[in-house]
Amino acid sequence: MYIVNAFPHKLNMESRLVEFRDKMAADLDRTMEFWLKNSHDDKYGGFFTCLTRDGKVYDETKYCWLQGRQVWTYSRLYNDVKRFHKPEILDAARNGGEFLMKYVKNPETWKCYFSLTRDGKPLKIQRTIFSECFYLMALSELARATGDPKYKTEALKMMDKILYWVRVDDTELGRPKLAGMESVNKMAIPMVILCLIDQLVTMEPGLLDKYRSDMKWCISQVLSHVQRDGKVVLENVSFDGKELPGCAGRLMNPGHAIEAGWVLTTLANRLEDNTLKSIAIEKFIDTSFENGWDKKYGGIFYFLDADGLSPAQLEWNMKLWWPHNEALIAFLMAYKETKNSEYFQKFSKVFDYAYKHFVDDVHGEWFGYLDRRGEINMDFKGGDYKGCFHVARYLMMCEKMATELLGNE
Amino acid sequence: MYIVNAFPHKLNMESRLVEFRDKMAADLDRTMEFWLKNSHDDKYGGFFTCLTRDGKVYDETKYCWLQGRQVWTYSRLYNDVKRFHKPEILDAARNGGEFLMKYVKNPETWKCYFSLTRDGKPLKIQRTIFSECFYLMALSELARATGDPKYKTEALKMMDKILYWVRVDDTELGRPKLAGMESVNKMAIPMVILCLIDQLVTMEPGLLDKYRSDMKWCISQVLSHVQRDGKVVLENVSFDGKELPGCAGRLMNPGHAIEAGWVLTTLANRLEDNTLKSIAIEKFIDTSFENGWDKKYGGIFYFLDADGLSPAQLEWNMKLWWPHNEALIAFLMAYKETKNSEYFQKFSKVFDYAYKHFVDDVHGEWFGYLDRRGEINMDFKGGDYKGCFHVARYLMMCEKMATELLGNE
Repeated sequence: MYIVNAFPHKLNMESRLVEFRDKMAADLDRTMEFWLKNSHDDKYGGFFTCLTRDGKVYDETKYCWLQGRQVWTYSRLYNDVKRFHKPEILDAARNGGEFLMKYVKNPETWKCYFSLTRDGKPLKIQRTIFSECFYLMALSELARATGDPKYKTEALKMMDKILYWVRVDDTELGRPKLAGMESVNKMAIPMVILCLIDQLVTMEPGLLDKYRSDMKWCISQVLSHVQRDGKVVLENVSFDGKELPGCAGRLMNPGHAIEAGWVLTTLANRLEDNTLKSIAIEKFIDTSFENGWDKKYGGIFYFLDADGLSPAQLEWNMKLWWPHNEALIAFLMAYKETKNSEYFQKFSKVFDYAYKHFVDDVHGEWFGYLDRRGEINMDFKGGDYKGCFHVARYLMMCEKMATELLGNE
Repeated sequence: MYIVNAFPHKLNMESRLVEFRDKMAADLDRTMEFWLKNSHDDKYGGFFTCLTRDGKVYDETKYCWLQGRQVWTYSRLYNDVKRFHKPEILDAARNGGEFLMKYVKNPETWKCYFSLTRDGKPLKIQRTIFSECFYLMALSELARATGDPKYKTEALKMMDKILYWVRVDDTELGRPKLAGMESVNKMAIPMVILCLIDQLVTMEPGLLDKYRSDMKWCISQVLSHVQRDGKVVLENVSFDGKELPGCAGRLMNPGHAIEAGWVLTTLANRLEDNTLKSIAIEKFIDTSFENGWDKKYGGIFYFLDADGLSPAQLEWNMKLWWPHNEALIAFLMAYKETKNSEYFQKFSKVFDYAYKHFVDDVHGEWFGYLDRRGEINMDFKGGDYKGCFHVARYLMMCEKMATELLGNE
């Protein structure tokens, strides 16, 4: 049993970090076992993501965000985590990638579907760019794993399409242009583009120069979401960096802001930009966490209103798994970058909450959706938005950072 | 203080009914006072629906479902409830109707927008028929109130469009046709058409014959949602009346099924069809209520899965105001039709829950969204889907039924 209050005594901190690392390593093994055992569709390819607590398929719909993210996760594990560098992981990643290329993308428009039937027929298409982004992420990481140039070519071509839609003309996305619509700078758009750039640069470091101006534009767009003298990060602002009226303007998604924080920190390292790093850690990570943490019941709120009104989203006070994954990555990274023990304490606080409430000790993986009080609101392990991605990404990133911090890489 | 356990002693039941009626009459006055005082936009016309607990506008977006429903509510009150038959109610209804005709409908396509800016510019359009249905409801009831033939003509023309989209060709709605999409018989569609027919017949009784075959088709479509030997009402089935696979196939929305029950009961009376009336009361109202009532904390669940799995909707176990309004209408109607005191007991049970949890004794109107335990999850009085409609409709219908039951109409 560790003693929380003994912080920041150095020896104790190290021993806690060892404990965390071991727990995360074991969690990663159990999490991946869950997906490897239950999610592969041997008949039609691709992955089932609608899995009950114990891994049974409760719906055969194939959600394409999650098809792409699972291919990415398998490929990244194969590439970066020695004990997952195994042929069966690579085969599963490649099978998933082939399913993506065969069924998820419309070859004429390069739009990707949002969901498919089990056998790959399109069910739903969104007028956004996210299915396409996760398609790119998957194939880019698979290119690293396989060395097959066709995946790299496909990823780069998709990047051209996405940048065209975002920065030149979005007509092809099919959204109606209505007279009352303001053009809104949604943080999710520049954020996901930054993730794509980081991904492509991971695949081929030389690409940093190619995307440097896009990256700078995205960073300035993301930074414009810091509002009210740095006290809040808002999801939606105007393109000239002003707060928007109404609920959409006041909307905060603390988990998303925290995720933006660690993505920006990573890019600040690539760009050797310490000012950016400070803003990323202090405003996006730390301030958003303080705003988003539920002082009464613990856990990070899903949505908040910057004026303290009731958000319009019915699920606003639920505790979702992924903001906690993002906060764990963010605070361990912030600690690693600054050695400020407060960030280690906050990592520990989120870790304790998460392992008390989200982790399923019986069947592995995390529950995804708790109510405000931390009770399980739905007990499935995967669904339309929860698949094999956030938990595994957090675990592999944090196991690696913990190992580096402990100096025995 | 009344004594719940004294049921079904006749005298006590009557005294309870008197008490309920008086409470509902007072609630209707307070509810309408809230909307009359806070929601009128004197500058641009139409109604604000995003109102805080105490009636302040927290977002100026004009949601068109709610614009139409508020016009309907004002008009119906003016037409049917003596103490609301006042010029200021009629004026407000007419102003709302003019806003609808001026801004909500695209005059070229007859599609109606989902939301507008405060000054009437379109913000969002849905690829369904609901904005159009509430437009029709509003203008049809306004035609009764004003006697102005232009509203009647508009409503009848919109009915032709809606029936064309639903029964002949829905291409104009703009939904993409994808290879994997099954054609799904969603209960909401025939249900809303039945409401439209009932509305138009209320405006002009002779129209019953015109819409008789559409009504029969809709009734058979709605009845096909009773599944599993009559034990459940499912939201989505196939057009040949079979259960669909996956989450969508197992989805139950008890409040919606209960609403369907009282709508069918009303139509069964129009059609003098006692078999339909029995199914409506026993399956749609009573069985759905028993399935949907939360035995642990009280209140009606929003969504359930027929196999008892976690529904995919994050808000599944929340207690929303409108299913409780529908249940109150349904059980008082069921009692009035059958004189079975069990239905009166269930009306009382829902009434007690609602007036303990939903009603705001301080500022009037109802809270809309409680958590599973019955605590207020968001404290606003109106939003994107909650406006001046369900509470007022329940109150005027139930006050009328209670008065009729007490025999002193």
